Amino acid sequence: MSERLGPPLDEPVFDELAIIGIGLIGSSLARAIRRQNAARRIVVADASEEALGRAEALGLGDAFTTDLAEGVRNADCVILCAPVGANAAIGRAIAPALKLGAIVSDVGSVKADVIAALQPVLPDHARLVPAHPVAGTEQSGPDAGFATLFVNRWSILTPPEGADAAAVAQVRRLWEAIGANVEVMEAAHHDLVLAITSHVPHLIAYNIVGTAADLEDVTRSEVMKFSAGGFRDFTRIAASDPTMWRDVFLHNKDAVLEMLGRFSEDLTALQRMIRRGDGDGLFALFTRTRGIRLGIVAQGQETAAPDFGRRVPDDGKAGR
Amino acid sequence: MSERLGPPLDEPVFDELAIIGIGLIGSSLARAIRRQNAARRIVVADASEEALGRAEALGLGDAFTTDLAEGVRNADCVILCAPVGANAAIGRAIAPALKLGAIVSDVGSVKADVIAALQPVLPDHARLVPAHPVAGTEQSGPDAGFATLFVNRWSILTPPEGADAAAVAQVRRLWEAIGANVEVMEAAHHDLVLAITSHVPHLIAYNIVGTAADLEDVTRSEVMKFSAGGFRDFTRIAASDPTMWRDVFLHNKDAVLEMLGRFSEDLTALQRMIRRGDGDGLFALFTRTRGIRLGIVAQGQETAAPDFGRRVPDDGKAGR
Repeated sequence: MSERLGPPLDEPVFDELAIIGIGLIGSSLARAIRRQNAARRIVVADASEEALGRAEALGLGDAFTTDLAEGVRNADCVILCAPVGANAAIGRAIAPALKLGAIVSDVGSVKADVIAALQPVLPDHARLVPAHPVAGTEQSGPDAGFATLFVNRWSILTPPEGADAAAVAQVRRLWEAIGANVEVMEAAHHDLVLAITSHVPHLIAYNIVGTAADLEDVTRSEVMKFSAGGFRDFTRIAASDPTMWRDVFLHNKDAVLEMLGRFSEDLTALQRMIRRGDGDGLFALFTRTRGIRLGIVAQGQETAAPDFGRRVPDDGKAGR
Repeated sequence: MSERLGPPLDEPVFDELAIIGIGLIGSSLARAIRRQNAARRIVVADASEEALGRAEALGLGDAFTTDLAEGVRNADCVILCAPVGANAAIGRAIAPALKLGAIVSDVGSVKADVIAALQPVLPDHARLVPAHPVAGTEQSGPDAGFATLFVNRWSILTPPEGADAAAVAQVRRLWEAIGANVEVMEAAHHDLVLAITSHVPHLIAYNIVGTAADLEDVTRSEVMKFSAGGFRDFTRIAASDPTMWRDVFLHNKDAVLEMLGRFSEDLTALQRMIRRGDGDGLFALFTRTRGIRLGIVAQGQETAAPDFGRRVPDDGKAGR
């Protein structure tokens, strides 16, 4: 997978850009925008003194404040990078201080709810362009970010009806400048797609790790010891930020419950095949699912290396 | 994760060793045993002419045959590396040809059923020592194997009651020679542990990839495009060998259904939390599951690198 950033911009997309919330995504954005010269000046705002202190120590911006209104005062673009449940409160805090025509964007994993939370509280002159970069790792906090996180990843913009086209174009340029591919989609459709590609996978990963932790016949140490059989992949996902994910499930409830219902129906069918010893049925499903991964690798969204390249054979062709 | 093999043995564990079934695991074994001088002579037997041809081209053994009985005639140790559903038939085919006191072992992911299949068909003089290396990748076939696959992985031996201690010790030495850690366990307990650390994770990965493939509102191309949100990890698991996994579910039915029942109960509880908007309940689970991964990393069974090290930041400390 290519993960190199192109040359920096000659002319920044924004004069001043404010990032609110300096965790994994916010800090990766700050690093990438700085590296690509996508904004002349970066203001970092975060309600947490501790996160802000780390951001300052890491040199992630030009100014740092715990006062969100202060942070956005001169910003041409404000990007909300807090867990989605905080967006309404953040919107209310920054609304009176926003510059005329300021663009307000975000990076949340749910989009319809974010629009519903922000539109009523933002001033009419503000231009809302929600975005969702489909990128991340299981780590969190300002130290976990890196400038190439968005390279060759998709960033999905979900402008509400009547959104300002110029604002959408600027947000698109920002994401493209830091290596992302941009797709525009309706918010409700985004939430349905991400429910199956991201939210439900996280939910079932959290769930099975919880199931394993609660077993009485199998010890926790056995679960960890023999995790290489597949389980450890799930533990990576289930190590993701708890606050962010709590908010995702609370704010994309309908789509998640819909997809979860389908998942459970299918699992019940699979369970019945096992109970009845229907080997042909199992084989047919297991064969069909193989093709999906080939498609993902072909689309450049995944490494083709076995086991994610986690273990690189040291023997090359020798000994084969 | 350390993945280097130690120095080769001065004295092989076995004079002649037969590998039956030359897929990912069989071919990795052949490479590792050769590299570590763990057997003086390796015979490769496989019912498939095609697989055998590849094995010969890759130089994986000293002799090659599609006649299983012929393959084991002089072997001190025979290792069955076919899907577990084939073990009874293979056992019947090799039984009359086995050398007096030959050790018969295997690498199957289920153990109680393998013992039940092999014990009645093997001659009394044969010494059965089932084994399960908890290692693999999503790839299959003789070309996919590599000599370091078992390094720092667990190999679980499940000798049946009354198994010959000397035979168990030899099989242990074989696995240790190729870098594995050895654990001895009762077959039924193995099957329960692996149901939760391996079998059910595979089942739900296959299941969600199937669910996604069947959606009508979300296109397959969208699912692949935006898979980086978590889904693509599941597709790796769901790209595993269909025959092998069909057999696992058919032959570890009880333990899989038991663990699947627990998983489904827990998922129902989680679903209810989402429906009721119980953020505290979600947060509590999502926090608890984080610790399990830290334990796995601490036990050396997983890389600590974010995203499995799939994307190495190219920026190091610069730009941070």
